[in-house]
Amino acid sequence: MPAAATKREETGVSKTSDSASRAGRLRRAPENFVDGELAADVVRGGWNPTRRSFLQRSFLAAGAALAGGTALATDAPATIGTAGALGDPMILEPRPWATSLGQPVAARPYGMPSKYEANLQRRQSPGLTQTAQASVAFTPLQGLFGIITPSGLHFERHHQGWQEIDPTQHRLMVHGLVRESKVYTMDDIMRLPSVSRMHFIECGANTGMEWGNAAVPTVQYTHGMLSCCEFTGVPLSVLLDDVGADTKRGQFVLAEGGDGSGMTRTISMEAALSDVLVAWGMNGEMLRPENGYPLRLVVPGVQGVSWVKWLRRIKVGDAPWNTKDETSHYVDLMPDGQHRQYTSIQECKSVITSPSGGQALLDRGYFNVTGLAWSGRGRIKRVDVSTDGGKSWRAARLESPVLPKCLTRFNFDWQWDGSPALLQSRAVDETGFVQPRYRQLRDVRGTKSIYHNNAIQTWQVAASGEVINVHVD
Amino acid sequence: MPAAATKREETGVSKTSDSASRAGRLRRAPENFVDGELAADVVRGGWNPTRRSFLQRSFLAAGAALAGGTALATDAPATIGTAGALGDPMILEPRPWATSLGQPVAARPYGMPSKYEANLQRRQSPGLTQTAQASVAFTPLQGLFGIITPSGLHFERHHQGWQEIDPTQHRLMVHGLVRESKVYTMDDIMRLPSVSRMHFIECGANTGMEWGNAAVPTVQYTHGMLSCCEFTGVPLSVLLDDVGADTKRGQFVLAEGGDGSGMTRTISMEAALSDVLVAWGMNGEMLRPENGYPLRLVVPGVQGVSWVKWLRRIKVGDAPWNTKDETSHYVDLMPDGQHRQYTSIQECKSVITSPSGGQALLDRGYFNVTGLAWSGRGRIKRVDVSTDGGKSWRAARLESPVLPKCLTRFNFDWQWDGSPALLQSRAVDETGFVQPRYRQLRDVRGTKSIYHNNAIQTWQVAASGEVINVHVD
Repeated sequence: MPAAATKREETGVSKTSDSASRAGRLRRAPENFVDGELAADVVRGGWNPTRRSFLQRSFLAAGAALAGGTALATDAPATIGTAGALGDPMILEPRPWATSLGQPVAARPYGMPSKYEANLQRRQSPGLTQTAQASVAFTPLQGLFGIITPSGLHFERHHQGWQEIDPTQHRLMVHGLVRESKVYTMDDIMRLPSVSRMHFIECGANTGMEWGNAAVPTVQYTHGMLSCCEFTGVPLSVLLDDVGADTKRGQFVLAEGGDGSGMTRTISMEAALSDVLVAWGMNGEMLRPENGYPLRLVVPGVQGVSWVKWLRRIKVGDAPWNTKDETSHYVDLMPDGQHRQYTSIQECKSVITSPSGGQALLDRGYFNVTGLAWSGRGRIKRVDVSTDGGKSWRAARLESPVLPKCLTRFNFDWQWDGSPALLQSRAVDETGFVQPRYRQLRDVRGTKSIYHNNAIQTWQVAASGEVINVHVD
Repeated sequence: MPAAATKREETGVSKTSDSASRAGRLRRAPENFVDGELAADVVRGGWNPTRRSFLQRSFLAAGAALAGGTALATDAPATIGTAGALGDPMILEPRPWATSLGQPVAARPYGMPSKYEANLQRRQSPGLTQTAQASVAFTPLQGLFGIITPSGLHFERHHQGWQEIDPTQHRLMVHGLVRESKVYTMDDIMRLPSVSRMHFIECGANTGMEWGNAAVPTVQYTHGMLSCCEFTGVPLSVLLDDVGADTKRGQFVLAEGGDGSGMTRTISMEAALSDVLVAWGMNGEMLRPENGYPLRLVVPGVQGVSWVKWLRRIKVGDAPWNTKDETSHYVDLMPDGQHRQYTSIQECKSVITSPSGGQALLDRGYFNVTGLAWSGRGRIKRVDVSTDGGKSWRAARLESPVLPKCLTRFNFDWQWDGSPALLQSRAVDETGFVQPRYRQLRDVRGTKSIYHNNAIQTWQVAASGEVINVHVD
């Protein structure tokens, strides 16, 4: 679709990014119909009035019926091959992979995705920052499933680039208002009692380009500073106990990173003693270098900048430190020109990941609308989806597990009748917080902020099926 | 340790595997003390009578106190550098990664582990099978955390090697006792209503080398045909509904793989209509080629062979098919010479992953004993750990989430006094099933089986600290 291609170029997304969307089209039903052969199949299996009876049934039957398959009768000549195993007709002609010896086990001692998925990548948004060492690589949410983010596609946000640290040379110092300051080796730390928990991590600047108008074309760039992993580490409370921290006078903790940016963030002692982890494990293995290997802070529910990577120092103090990263950066500019500091919690938020901007619906009928919801305050209680820009809402299905301060995957059944639509999702968390509309958010925050934009996202579906990013009040 | 090295060689584990254990030693506290500099640190931070007060406190405090850290006072000359950020002493001398520009974002559009983790690999057990296309690559459980298995380290078990299938050419046929047979493209299938669930997958032959005596040295080879991922796909019940399956006469379903081995397995209609998925997603992205890309069956709680990879055909029938993979393979040889078929459920089982065979405890004091528990019947209810070969047991901590037919991570606090010990874990699932001892299992099954060995595993800790695989009744 030239129109969409042009739109993508205008927003500075490279040709390779176009291929990524195309790879998406090959994998996500709403995007598949650009391919003639596949289109034919799906049209044959698509909307079929004779199957209306299915519509009275559960979402499953309805979904299955409307998506359908290719009736053998229809294309028997084309698709039935010679007799196969057990004397049954084989599917199409024998495939090369069914008639040749495959590759050995451990051919790849550490496996990688299929070559057919090579375009699903984390990508930098060209021109977003002046140097690629102080920039962002976004997670391709449009091509992901469930809640776990593959570690290889975890978003990146660095202030002086990422480093590959020798774990035997890394140290963590804990000091300040403590009985006995200490320096820990990785071995000291990994020997401690550990816990494993699944949490989302979202950069405070996620969706930051959207404060004014709809600025970028795809969900990878509107919401892709978001990932979710299983983290393993030692509770920070264990380390604070080990050094005999004064938790009465010491109401604050400073965390400092070991890279050149010397990232430093203040955390309240209350948080430090609750669910904060000093983590080495991510999705079952050691952290990736881009994500803080060998040690990072995990601060559930709090913006990513506080999840200090390459963690080298913890200091206990009696006041916030007001470091550069807390005063000149990561503050919320308000309409009156003042700014808010230490607005760290990532409030309740959600987004539809498919269908989403850059994709296209090329026929009518059933679509499984899917997306993600999360809250820094706890569990997601419900997610509603609207296809008419918020005039009416219906509850989406939440996939288990639904965990606190963790992504929740939702799915929603939608029959597209071919007319224009405005797709929105609205999350509610267990505190009762309801994700705001843009108008509500701007009434308080104005449009000059960078951080903490948790407004309801709208994807506009044109009659042509093209999906684009728009803002509605 | 030459003794251990010899032992490993006897069991055919290569030198590279030794390096893997060594890489483990660099990452797991009990294994770290071979390195002089680190040893010194840990000894300084090790057992310290003056901290006994900590022992009265919670496991966290106890754990922290006994593992300890390095008191600054002790090695100030060696470890305190010049003033760093905020005027505080820096940890040791400035590190190169703190004084240089790092690498840009998206330097690796699809990330990989640190080079320092390169030895954590899935590995084939040499000599286990005659060809590497019909073999096994084991997951390195000794080096993993939490419950999610990194997709790159998911175990492999192939019958004719793995193939990289073009998803646009792949088809799934559903036929047999159905109203209308159909052939589905990947796009038909991925358009259907999807669900995402976390489940373990265990090969029925996992721990199969241990029926007689303790045969292999490490947990990678005793239990490494085990992984756990978040799977996304369409419930098989949706497809069966779409083709109008006769679920009264059709009490069985056949699943067939698209690779050269034509793997075929019978599944009961009862299971097919409950929680079986036709899955394309694994840990948030598309399945890996080694794990069935683009489509595999997910049969929660059932042995891995039934999770047919490269799924190309589903047939509904009125009797089990008794295919080669159900009659000459994957059957349990009983003491009387007869064999049992269709013993598919993976019963309640657990294993300590660290400390485990091939590792070494090089000082006394606190250790976080950690491992995995799972049951094909549902949730894990509790895990007990013994350090005296089963004479006494204490409950381990279960990490959340505890999900049905999913791995559960457990942790257990242990003070090692330097005397020989026998480490065991015993899982109990929500049905009340208690993991059996070897004697109990052999009383019923004998010692000639290959499959479904869920006996309690014993790791013997010698006074030297060396950990080896042993069997106790």
